[in-house]
Amino acid sequence: MSSKYNIFFIGAGKLAWHLAPAIEKAGHKVPGLYSRSTDKAFSVANKLYEAIPTSSKDLRDIPADFFFLTVSDDAIKGIIEEFIFPEDAVVVHCSGTASLDLLKPLKNRKGCFYPVQTFSGNVPLDFSTIPIVIEAGDTETEKELTEIATSLTGKVFFLNSDRRKFLHLAAVFANNFTNHLIGIAGEILKEHDIDPVILKSLVQETVRKATENDPFEIQTGPAKRGDDATINKHLEILNRNPDLWEIYEVITNSIRKR
Amino acid sequence: MSSKYNIFFIGAGKLAWHLAPAIEKAGHKVPGLYSRSTDKAFSVANKLYEAIPTSSKDLRDIPADFFFLTVSDDAIKGIIEEFIFPEDAVVVHCSGTASLDLLKPLKNRKGCFYPVQTFSGNVPLDFSTIPIVIEAGDTETEKELTEIATSLTGKVFFLNSDRRKFLHLAAVFANNFTNHLIGIAGEILKEHDIDPVILKSLVQETVRKATENDPFEIQTGPAKRGDDATINKHLEILNRNPDLWEIYEVITNSIRKR
Repeated sequence: MSSKYNIFFIGAGKLAWHLAPAIEKAGHKVPGLYSRSTDKAFSVANKLYEAIPTSSKDLRDIPADFFFLTVSDDAIKGIIEEFIFPEDAVVVHCSGTASLDLLKPLKNRKGCFYPVQTFSGNVPLDFSTIPIVIEAGDTETEKELTEIATSLTGKVFFLNSDRRKFLHLAAVFANNFTNHLIGIAGEILKEHDIDPVILKSLVQETVRKATENDPFEIQTGPAKRGDDATINKHLEILNRNPDLWEIYEVITNSIRKR
Repeated sequence: MSSKYNIFFIGAGKLAWHLAPAIEKAGHKVPGLYSRSTDKAFSVANKLYEAIPTSSKDLRDIPADFFFLTVSDDAIKGIIEEFIFPEDAVVVHCSGTASLDLLKPLKNRKGCFYPVQTFSGNVPLDFSTIPIVIEAGDTETEKELTEIATSLTGKVFFLNSDRRKFLHLAAVFANNFTNHLIGIAGEILKEHDIDPVILKSLVQETVRKATENDPFEIQTGPAKRGDDATINKHLEILNRNPDLWEIYEVITNSIRKR
């Protein structure tokens, strides 16, 4: 039987919005959260969490086993400098990029609990499909974070800070860059009065195939075919937009090299 | 009531594999198809289509209202030079890139019927979600192609060859380039013994969000934040791979300009 934990959240952004109710749904307790803007109560999926006042940075009275730092990377350092945590509590950051060493100044047990997903919007996500990456400073913390992660998802990965760095780099290509290219595609369409919805099912099928096969093996299109006539026509169209021209050329060359 | 048509296919590649049975499911007839490799019977979704011999390029006896050219762009020219079609049949190419002018040498009525999707694999796709782009040389053909398209999908678009060119350029960004970036992400993971499945739900959610919002507005990540420390770390990691280094830099700069 898996233990249930009290998990207090520091930071009331999108990650907390999604993670806190998922944690509770999995049987753990969220006794409250800390937000810089305590005047506005923190409402997640119709549940109101108790927000503690910003003035009180002494958290020693809070009955929590874990403190999850669901804040931006930049904010982690300030929090561990300013806050006082209960001695026996575990302090955990939820960042894909930050090293575990960032928590070094603390005497507490330490960990990283990183759900590999892009969080936004106000429709709760199904955590059972979201991989969670764990790192811990000691075996007891690793065991406990594993219990929490497996109560949310079947996809739990153990990566140290060094390997997590490469995961984050890969995620920049797969998430930020892919999003930007879809944005460019939509912009080209809008410029010619074509509804961007026209590419929706194509993009969805592209991603379905790319995540179920080796993308390099199933690649199609002018770059893959070495279809210079089409490539040159496209570059000519993009000529008045150096930004898009460069992206087109660089990725086309990269595809051709495979 | 919508008319039903006899539609003969020239070309037995992936597009015919998906489109022919969808056409029949919608109530039309596919009296047969032409394939360069007639020795192998053409089987689609467990149905065997009659293949006509390669030697016979006189198609005047074939009882078809439409001839759909489901071949590569390069092959279209040769087909319209070599084949003889029934006088009153409509000849239709299914290419996103080829201009309707490519069919000019024919005396037949002409059209383009372009399903905006990437076709591969052997799982039949649901055509009701696939946009179909139509162009016709005359209003009668446009009316008939619209009937065929709307019998397959609710998403029918009318674009002339010039605007279809921009659609195809946008599709290169949204499909080929996106696929390549997902390939790069997978490669970075594999190099560090991380299962690429770890990014699957992130990529799916990225695309869901990018197709339901303005991608530029919901962009996240180091480039959007102007997080130079992370960007420089990433460029350092990619330093030994000029190909990926260049893609990273060019797209990062493009994101920062928005």
